[in-house]
Amino acid sequence: MKNSINEKSANVAFISVTEMIALLKRIGTEQFIAGLVEYLEQDYRQWEAFDKSPRFAAHSPEGVIELMPTGNDTLFGFKYVNGHPKNTLSGLQTVTAFGVLSDVATGYPLLLSEMTILTALRTAATSAMMAKYLAPKNASTLAMIGCGAQSEFQVIAFSSLLGIKTVRLYDINAQAIEKCRNNLADKGLNIIVCASANEVVQGADIITTCTADKKNATILTSDMVSDGVHVNAIGGDCPGKTELAADLLNRADVFIEYEPQTRIEGDIQQLPANSPITEMYHVIRGEKPGRTSDQQLTIFDGVGFAVEDYSALRFVYDLVKKQGNCAQLELLANPENPRNLFGLTV
Amino acid sequence: MKNSINEKSANVAFISVTEMIALLKRIGTEQFIAGLVEYLEQDYRQWEAFDKSPRFAAHSPEGVIELMPTGNDTLFGFKYVNGHPKNTLSGLQTVTAFGVLSDVATGYPLLLSEMTILTALRTAATSAMMAKYLAPKNASTLAMIGCGAQSEFQVIAFSSLLGIKTVRLYDINAQAIEKCRNNLADKGLNIIVCASANEVVQGADIITTCTADKKNATILTSDMVSDGVHVNAIGGDCPGKTELAADLLNRADVFIEYEPQTRIEGDIQQLPANSPITEMYHVIRGEKPGRTSDQQLTIFDGVGFAVEDYSALRFVYDLVKKQGNCAQLELLANPENPRNLFGLTV
Repeated sequence: MKNSINEKSANVAFISVTEMIALLKRIGTEQFIAGLVEYLEQDYRQWEAFDKSPRFAAHSPEGVIELMPTGNDTLFGFKYVNGHPKNTLSGLQTVTAFGVLSDVATGYPLLLSEMTILTALRTAATSAMMAKYLAPKNASTLAMIGCGAQSEFQVIAFSSLLGIKTVRLYDINAQAIEKCRNNLADKGLNIIVCASANEVVQGADIITTCTADKKNATILTSDMVSDGVHVNAIGGDCPGKTELAADLLNRADVFIEYEPQTRIEGDIQQLPANSPITEMYHVIRGEKPGRTSDQQLTIFDGVGFAVEDYSALRFVYDLVKKQGNCAQLELLANPENPRNLFGLTV
Repeated sequence: MKNSINEKSANVAFISVTEMIALLKRIGTEQFIAGLVEYLEQDYRQWEAFDKSPRFAAHSPEGVIELMPTGNDTLFGFKYVNGHPKNTLSGLQTVTAFGVLSDVATGYPLLLSEMTILTALRTAATSAMMAKYLAPKNASTLAMIGCGAQSEFQVIAFSSLLGIKTVRLYDINAQAIEKCRNNLADKGLNIIVCASANEVVQGADIITTCTADKKNATILTSDMVSDGVHVNAIGGDCPGKTELAADLLNRADVFIEYEPQTRIEGDIQQLPANSPITEMYHVIRGEKPGRTSDQQLTIFDGVGFAVEDYSALRFVYDLVKKQGNCAQLELLANPENPRNLFGLTV
């Protein structure tokens, strides 16, 4: 599928919020995440092919607006994403996002998609993909610290890809726990509501920290985490926002997405700039080990990288192509004589 | 006008190609450009308020895809723009663009607009605004070197804002000249078709160079340009792409948009990094002189800066607000309970 071109414009496939929801319902959230994991692994395997740069960020007292671009020699993608913690006070999302996938050969955008929902899916898919290489064998219990907008997607990804059967939930907000429990009620999971972070980690094979406070917090201390556990730490994702105690990081083998970004944004921002880490593309390609023993404590210090958004946009675009029809946005002027742009306007 | 919010999403005003054309026809191209010049001057006057950064560029053998972000404490804007010279061979535009304007306080996008046409309008408005400060008094004759997609917009801007009565046209492509002449036939201008660059500059008060070749070309040499002329040089706008001979630049007073970008992208990329220039915001604010004598040779070395796209998006958004209705894109997921993003998907 290329841009559909009419007399005066080239159209771009458009996935609205409603269409993304319809796509998810048609395919199934579990299958969507599983498909996305395949695309993520394909793109992580060709890591060097991507033009990688730190995200562009416009900071204000209220929050941040970011542009996350990346591409290879065939496709270019970028995501627009904001982070405004106080938005929830006025009934708005803390994080909203949309993204664009373009044809490198012509520079024409091919797809514009909502990415608020898609980012939650790609973050869950990324966490589960990393855990395939890092989590203990036969992991069956997941502890979720933070039951916000991401939480159900994380649980579904770990349940369908890692075989998690028991989910332990904790949040400082009891309503958030209740919302998460209700949303997961029909998923065939054993769900246990816990009253503290200390309680929720008991017996967990995998601990996910996904909290929203924009500060250097200590959600997990070293004494709370047993050997052999995998920590999926995804809430500490910008400068000044961390979740793990430094001694926990020092005790574990730490795996990350992209060192130049994670040193600034991840939990390892607390550690010296030469602290040992492993970039996950090496592990996914089999060049470096992931988990090597039952006793190993592993941490995925995830911050979200542009390649993952690229994979998500590429996955959605391929779904749309297979489907064969999609709403079209008349976004690009495209006069029959390219030099006669003015001719369109009279 | 804020985002219109329904049960599950926040909508973003959308200006398609068709709607941009309708807006132009309703308002009139001359009036649109005049309104845009007011917005440009307002934003140039508050230059320091903008978060300025060099554009992000993803280069490929076929062309470049760029993201141009900027903002102040109330609004953030960015433009996506490609440059693919070989696109015309397959009937596509060399340059297409779209842009987004967002509310800094919430991070929510407010407007998504086509910008292929809007960029041509803002470039013409910018050239004319700069010429208000730089062109000789009572300028009546404009020479256009390059009759591509930009040319008619430039002529209309100089005609309506500077009072240009005679337009001399030249392009290496005779069909491009003919197209431009036809498009301008009903504008009440004296149009003279010329056979060479040497001929077209004869008697011109203002010379616009707007050629497309992606190379270091010499469209204007010093001997072709008389004292007292204003040169509006807008085609040399990326590394390796220039139009003016170095000795012409050295002879003139050179005015630019934003030094860090123009040193790399403008015609002055040929000159030493400390060659004398004046940033135009000083001139617009009356802090530094523009034209000071009838004999002065002035050059506006324009490359196109993100603030100008911001002004254009802000102008269109205000038009849309006044108009009161606009197509809405369902781009942002916005569940009633912000934590319950998952609830939208089931």
